[in-house]
Amino acid sequence: MKLLYPTSLKLVTKSIEGFSVGLIPYNVHQLIPEEHTDADVLVTWANSSENLKDAASRLKNLRWIQSLAAGPNDVINAGFDTSKIILTTGSGLHDHTVAEHTLALLLSAARRLHDMRDAQLQVRWPGELGGPQPDRPAGAFTTLRDARVLIWGFGNIAKTLTPHLVALGAKVKGVARNAGVRNGVEVYSEDSLSTLLPETDALVMILPGSDSTKHALNAERLRLLPKHAWIVNVGRGTSVDEDALADALEQGVIGGASLDVFQVEPLQKGSRLWKTPNTVISPHAAGGRPQNAEALIADNLRRFIAGQDLRNRI
Amino acid sequence: MKLLYPTSLKLVTKSIEGFSVGLIPYNVHQLIPEEHTDADVLVTWANSSENLKDAASRLKNLRWIQSLAAGPNDVINAGFDTSKIILTTGSGLHDHTVAEHTLALLLSAARRLHDMRDAQLQVRWPGELGGPQPDRPAGAFTTLRDARVLIWGFGNIAKTLTPHLVALGAKVKGVARNAGVRNGVEVYSEDSLSTLLPETDALVMILPGSDSTKHALNAERLRLLPKHAWIVNVGRGTSVDEDALADALEQGVIGGASLDVFQVEPLQKGSRLWKTPNTVISPHAAGGRPQNAEALIADNLRRFIAGQDLRNRI
Repeated sequence: MKLLYPTSLKLVTKSIEGFSVGLIPYNVHQLIPEEHTDADVLVTWANSSENLKDAASRLKNLRWIQSLAAGPNDVINAGFDTSKIILTTGSGLHDHTVAEHTLALLLSAARRLHDMRDAQLQVRWPGELGGPQPDRPAGAFTTLRDARVLIWGFGNIAKTLTPHLVALGAKVKGVARNAGVRNGVEVYSEDSLSTLLPETDALVMILPGSDSTKHALNAERLRLLPKHAWIVNVGRGTSVDEDALADALEQGVIGGASLDVFQVEPLQKGSRLWKTPNTVISPHAAGGRPQNAEALIADNLRRFIAGQDLRNRI
Repeated sequence: MKLLYPTSLKLVTKSIEGFSVGLIPYNVHQLIPEEHTDADVLVTWANSSENLKDAASRLKNLRWIQSLAAGPNDVINAGFDTSKIILTTGSGLHDHTVAEHTLALLLSAARRLHDMRDAQLQVRWPGELGGPQPDRPAGAFTTLRDARVLIWGFGNIAKTLTPHLVALGAKVKGVARNAGVRNGVEVYSEDSLSTLLPETDALVMILPGSDSTKHALNAERLRLLPKHAWIVNVGRGTSVDEDALADALEQGVIGGASLDVFQVEPLQKGSRLWKTPNTVISPHAAGGRPQNAEALIADNLRRFIAGQDLRNRI
């Protein structure tokens, strides 16, 4: 058996040795060499679309693809024969990094670090943001303490993020397809959005990209948020109607938005979102640093050889 | 007995009733009215220097000043007769707010939110900061996970901040006048700085302003830090030699600095720090929002009347 692993990240291959499997490195930006088109297993990370399209047509023995991305849309769209190839994701490898970036965006928004930066570039002391301030005034998002944070899309990233928010004093609720209590957080179904959104100071979007999540946050739902509410999107750009969001920001329907993902990436030069008020643009930087990928690969490789169910199977 | 309380913040006076004490509101930006110059107790918050200087000469019966500031340099410098007037600080009222702002500055620095903002203002997608990235590369401060954070000045704010850093995966050590283990953190004396600084990814300064802390972080100590180390100062501006810091930033001796406090505030237009590389200017915004001040005032008022030692006495 032959497994191809990418050189686009530093993998400690020692941690996936011990099986009767050949471990072959490959360059994700080039076509896979002829002598390795007999591979059984392909691990992908940040592959070029040319590499993936080519692999889909030339790797005739392929039986399993382990992507290290949480949402492997690149592999899904490359044309692999999914009737005979198993696809598993890197879900879980990005929980810490995405949670940390989300926390950074939330705190930066509450503490207005972007406004401070704008002032600094003008060599202006933004006295209005410092010195004596009202503590937790009503109708404003100025701290995570007592802030009502709603996390829409309540998977592993949300579970990793929540304890940090709670420790800082936030009141966290979740929204997901299935209601219930998860890790001590009350998670509601989307039916409850009309009552949840009006009671939200910060809305964190961690929805995956799919037809069912397209424009989940639309004009109607934006209008349900309080005027001071801040949106953070670290899921997928397609989950937000960007035109409706730009309108809401321009018209002061919401307080602001920190966006790490966009309908089209890189964000297009012509997008209004570069300059809408209270908007923070982050270049899909929340994740992108898989952690402990070797453990997932090794565990799934063991399961694959043993004929067991794989983790993170789509 | 008469207590004057400031109207510069929202105090729930109900929480300090029940004593045989007259509770009189006063405006911190005006001189105290003649009929209240017989006050025994003065609570201060964000008073003008004129108000304090005037109070020092006219409040002849004053026996106790409760400042709500953590470091009440304004009261200390106003000319009160400290041989007969007790001064107590607002230490503890700012722990959460300063810790939160410090965390915001640390995360923002690690995730380079200021660089993203600069790019946004130029309508430029900063692809170099997003997409696939190396995870925790050596010689860089890119995440709090596994980051070696040294907190210099290990009081209540540090104790409040530390659990958040540890939860995010940071390795925290402290420096203070007295060594020992505090809240599970190994705190070293300043003698150890020469061995601690070279092993620091982020240095958090929370030193009070005093003669003994003046320019504690000087050129010599800056040179001991790794080239990628980031400094966050939320203590007092005088604890850093700003000329030496500007030199270090310009010469790449350290990785960067997020500064909330300065030798002179507002930061002077002519300061190099506005434009030194990798420098983030925050307008003394970490604290400034006393929390639960009523509980401190009530407890100290009870102690004062009972002839007991007061909390936070200087």
